[in-house]
Amino acid sequence: MAPAGGPRAKKGILERLDAGEVVIGDGSFLLTLEKRGYVKAGLWTPEAVIEHPDAVRQLHMEFLRAGSNVMQTFTFSASEEKMESKYFEHVEEAVWAVEVLKEFGKPVAVTMCINPEGDKDNVTPGECAVKLGKAGANIIGVNCRFGPQTSIQTMKLMKEGLGAAGLKAHLIVQSLGFHTPDCGKGGYLDLPEYPFALEPRLVTRWDIQKYAREAYDLGVRYIGGCCGFEPYHIRAIAEELAPERGFLPPASEKHDSWGSGLSTHTKPWIRARAKREYWENLLPASGRPFCPSLSKPDN
Amino acid sequence: MAPAGGPRAKKGILERLDAGEVVIGDGSFLLTLEKRGYVKAGLWTPEAVIEHPDAVRQLHMEFLRAGSNVMQTFTFSASEEKMESKYFEHVEEAVWAVEVLKEFGKPVAVTMCINPEGDKDNVTPGECAVKLGKAGANIIGVNCRFGPQTSIQTMKLMKEGLGAAGLKAHLIVQSLGFHTPDCGKGGYLDLPEYPFALEPRLVTRWDIQKYAREAYDLGVRYIGGCCGFEPYHIRAIAEELAPERGFLPPASEKHDSWGSGLSTHTKPWIRARAKREYWENLLPASGRPFCPSLSKPDN
Amino acid sequence: MAPAGGPRAKKGILERLDAGEVVIGDGSFLLTLEKRGYVKAGLWTPEAVIEHPDAVRQLHMEFLRAGSNVMQTFTFSASEEKMESKYFEHVEEAVWAVEVLKEFGKPVAVTMCINPEGDKDNVTPGECAVKLGKAGANIIGVNCRFGPQTSIQTMKLMKEGLGAAGLKAHLIVQSLGFHTPDCGKGGYLDLPEYPFALEPRLVTRWDIQKYAREAYDLGVRYIGGCCGFEPYHIRAIAEELAPERGFLPPASEKHDSWGSGLSTHTKPWIRARAKREYWENLLPASGRPFCPSLSKPDN
Amino acid sequence: MAPAGGPRAKKGILERLDAGEVVIGDGSFLLTLEKRGYVKAGLWTPEAVIEHPDAVRQLHMEFLRAGSNVMQTFTFSASEEKMESKYFEHVEEAVWAVEVLKEFGKPVAVTMCINPEGDKDNVTPGECAVKLGKAGANIIGVNCRFGPQTSIQTMKLMKEGLGAAGLKAHLIVQSLGFHTPDCGKGGYLDLPEYPFALEPRLVTRWDIQKYAREAYDLGVRYIGGCCGFEPYHIRAIAEELAPERGFLPPASEKHDSWGSGLSTHTKPWIRARAKREYWENLLPASGRPFCPSLSKPDN
Repeated sequence: MAPAGGPRAKKGILERLDAGEVVIGDGSFLLTLEKRGYVKAGLWTPEAVIEHPDAVRQLHMEFLRAGSNVMQTFTFSASEEKMESKYFEHVEEAVWAVEVLKEFGKPVAVTMCINPEGDKDNVTPGECAVKLGKAGANIIGVNCRFGPQTSIQTMKLMKEGLGAAGLKAHLIVQSLGFHTPDCGKGGYLDLPEYPFALEPRLVTRWDIQKYAREAYDLGVRYIGGCCGFEPYHIRAIAEELAPERGFLPPASEKHDSWGSGLSTHTKPWIRARAKREYWENLLPASGRPFCPSLSKPDN
Repeated sequence: MAPAGGPRAKKGILERLDAGEVVIGDGSFLLTLEKRGYVKAGLWTPEAVIEHPDAVRQLHMEFLRAGSNVMQTFTFSASEEKMESKYFEHVEEAVWAVEVLKEFGKPVAVTMCINPEGDKDNVTPGECAVKLGKAGANIIGVNCRFGPQTSIQTMKLMKEGLGAAGLKAHLIVQSLGFHTPDCGKGGYLDLPEYPFALEPRLVTRWDIQKYAREAYDLGVRYIGGCCGFEPYHIRAIAEELAPERGFLPPASEKHDSWGSGLSTHTKPWIRARAKREYWENLLPASGRPFCPSLSKPDN
Repeated sequence: MAPAGGPRAKKGILERLDAGEVVIGDGSFLLTLEKRGYVKAGLWTPEAVIEHPDAVRQLHMEFLRAGSNVMQTFTFSASEEKMESKYFEHVEEAVWAVEVLKEFGKPVAVTMCINPEGDKDNVTPGECAVKLGKAGANIIGVNCRFGPQTSIQTMKLMKEGLGAAGLKAHLIVQSLGFHTPDCGKGGYLDLPEYPFALEPRLVTRWDIQKYAREAYDLGVRYIGGCCGFEPYHIRAIAEELAPERGFLPPASEKHDSWGSGLSTHTKPWIRARAKREYWENLLPASGRPFCPSLSKPDN
Repeated sequence: MAPAGGPRAKKGILERLDAGEVVIGDGSFLLTLEKRGYVKAGLWTPEAVIEHPDAVRQLHMEFLRAGSNVMQTFTFSASEEKMESKYFEHVEEAVWAVEVLKEFGKPVAVTMCINPEGDKDNVTPGECAVKLGKAGANIIGVNCRFGPQTSIQTMKLMKEGLGAAGLKAHLIVQSLGFHTPDCGKGGYLDLPEYPFALEPRLVTRWDIQKYAREAYDLGVRYIGGCCGFEPYHIRAIAEELAPERGFLPPASEKHDSWGSGLSTHTKPWIRARAKREYWENLLPASGRPFCPSLSKPDN
């Protein structure tokens, strides 16, 4: 399949989702720009947009090239696309936001930052989804705070909740690019490694292909990432779902699927890595034998 | 200390080292551009320079901003600075290269990709350094293939060898940005995680501050990185050695030392992370309890 | 406190528990005798009692010496004490057993092998406890299949269930001597390490002191062990609860509390280990960097 | 192969080794009796022999039953067999001991507690072996302080040393029953887990079969264990070498080789564990995700 970039026609996100398309979100802006030297950790204020527009534009370009259909973060535009409301820890606040946005007659996407335990008031993911669906949200899901496996679990519960209530909505998932099986409700902020020693938790491209597949199979059609997601992670979503979508993203011209580009390597033991089973089954070592596998959250 | 960027006067690297300055190298081009979508893994050919010059220029800018004094990789310039010869696995080849370069009357830096076990012919690091010093190399050290702790060990042995032989040369170290305590002589290429699942081995900024300090204390004055080194890792070298150098790099305007930028965070347990002892002593978890700490090299 | 062994007067277990005493169970017979060469793994039949009575008697002696007040397993006696029914995976079966035993007018202790997820029919631990309490069981709790932390969690839920239903019963816990945070409902049989590679999961004496304290604080008064519990683990229960009970077990003549016996060691760094904070906070390494921390259950 | 116990005829150890037989040592007395409640850790004095002779005799019986041909520890006999001198950290002391013992015209076995780095005076294992061989030792090797993999490495170096010097001697290895890849020269005493939290490092029976095979293939013919070795570990040596020796130990009547006793288990996924490839390739999890894989020695 040749890299193509997919349909260029300008359609709204809701229109696309209604038509059965997969929409691929983008990835991490603040954490990634921090590593590139343009954003300060802690308050994470986005003045880079003004101070270093070239650096921000370059990262935008990389996500687009990797297959992202939307450019949500950092754009501050007032376009018809701008409709998302994120980082809700309490479903009641999310419901109010949806109700306000609905008054403007716009499509509303709303994402909560919860795990399978539910929101800060112990409302389960299923109930959260139902409340949001009843308030009129068109796209419902989770964003940030939790890693791919946790986020998929939460989405499963949200979907079940909507189904049991006979409600219909599009589903969205935007996981962290870090593994966080050891978080509590507070998410990765409470992990002792946040924000300056998260490296060992960083997901591989193969972790993300698995995540994209599981999200898709669950019926989620808006699939993206959040903090920690680099361009190659977004590309992994696009590559995993290329059979369904019928095209590869531009950046796949520099990436052969499942490591097959290694098949011409001079060393035979590296050539042996040029296949799907290899990468799918590899359990990557941390190179850190003095470190634990899990941490206790600080809170 | 305000970010300044340091002396701008054009001096040759050898001139700087002779004057007792610290020279900070740059980091990873090929692996980093692969993650940004512009280079293909495996052959790692650098056609990105021609195809996507903006992306390459942006990464150059980030390394410069992070404190790098030199732009060695990807430049292909014929300047007086271009003198390095890397990736030697056999000291005899390295000696020939030095002899040829010396005939042109240029300063010669030569780096080998060896670990404390020595080169492919079992020549110890100390002997390698002596052979290179006798051949006339001005700057001697290691590059790539091994992580920071391994590379520092090798440098110790090289320095001891030179000292015992009464030879003088400047020292250079350019480690991987991955922890590789489990490699054999072949380096990280032989690890099962190479090149697509190295994420859990990625070094933190604090690992690099430790590396920079140990290199400096050992007498190494050309300190940089190689594959895996992102701009914030180069900045970590520059920040660690700011007291000695008297200035911070430009990108430190977005980074308070030792996490002190967290001191105004709203959550008290995150504020508690705003100090050196915290990050220096943290043993970061992998978030991967089903994965091992070390791997057996494939070769 | 001098080792004493405690009250020798012959009292029934129920009588003791009614009087507020702590009863300490014994530990592992089948797994321990397997390691000593007298029992075959798999079917775990106890013919050792007949074939090698000395070996069985010796282990009994060790548990008694370690502080056990009861000798339940392997005795096959028809005494008034023999009243326990173990290894129930379905609460309905356990209820029938209780009802039958009650007809004989004997005190009935019943333990289930469940984790916080509940029994095989998804009856929660709280509901299980209520059903057993209503059926007339005098002592209710869990036995085997799960490690100390998991078992304590289950006991918490059982106690809450009984409390909410206004029922009263004595509580019993007999955990595995292995850490099993990665089990599902099937318990440690489903872990790939069962039964011949459980060594890295073996609990320390300090793990068991913690377990005994948590069980006691929860109100559990019959505290013992199951597969994997060696005599020194039983002694750890007795030592942890010595302040409450007023005496130490005989085997404590060979064990100073919290490692204090190391205080006269010739090496200063080993003397430094002669204190409670040391052992309580130690995170013991596995010495197995190529192995994971957790396994996926086989079923 | 039926358990038999092997030749009963009374022969001296040297006589057996000269005849090409494999001699199987015994295991851990002090550490094992500590766990059974009869010995105090720290000074490790063996008064149990007098105070609790039954417990000591029982352990002796277990090791004999497991296949041990010799009963060296705890016997204090003056028989012709008693000839070993252990726990040498300095080769010079070992040489003196050998010279003294030789004057009595007895066969002399001498074991050092060193790792591949050599003795406390930096004499390499090869040189140690040569010095001992020249002094007249008949059996040379290592004992205690280091785990199986480390001990095998040291034996390799000792053998090479003897070979290069044209000396002949029988080889003996008696490893710890704990994995210690992270020790320095001081051995496991310097590990923070010593002596009360070594559990996660305990070797499996499969680790010991591997150790026995590697020792045998290296030419070592006196193979035993030291601290941490339980009866079933000694049995593992005897089972691994049963093809060469032609008989199984008595305790193998309770142990089918390579887990084959599980082949009749009721659960299919446990039956699937009844084979050699399963146990040989299993990487057992620690069940301790908050703990590291390796520790830094205290000294």
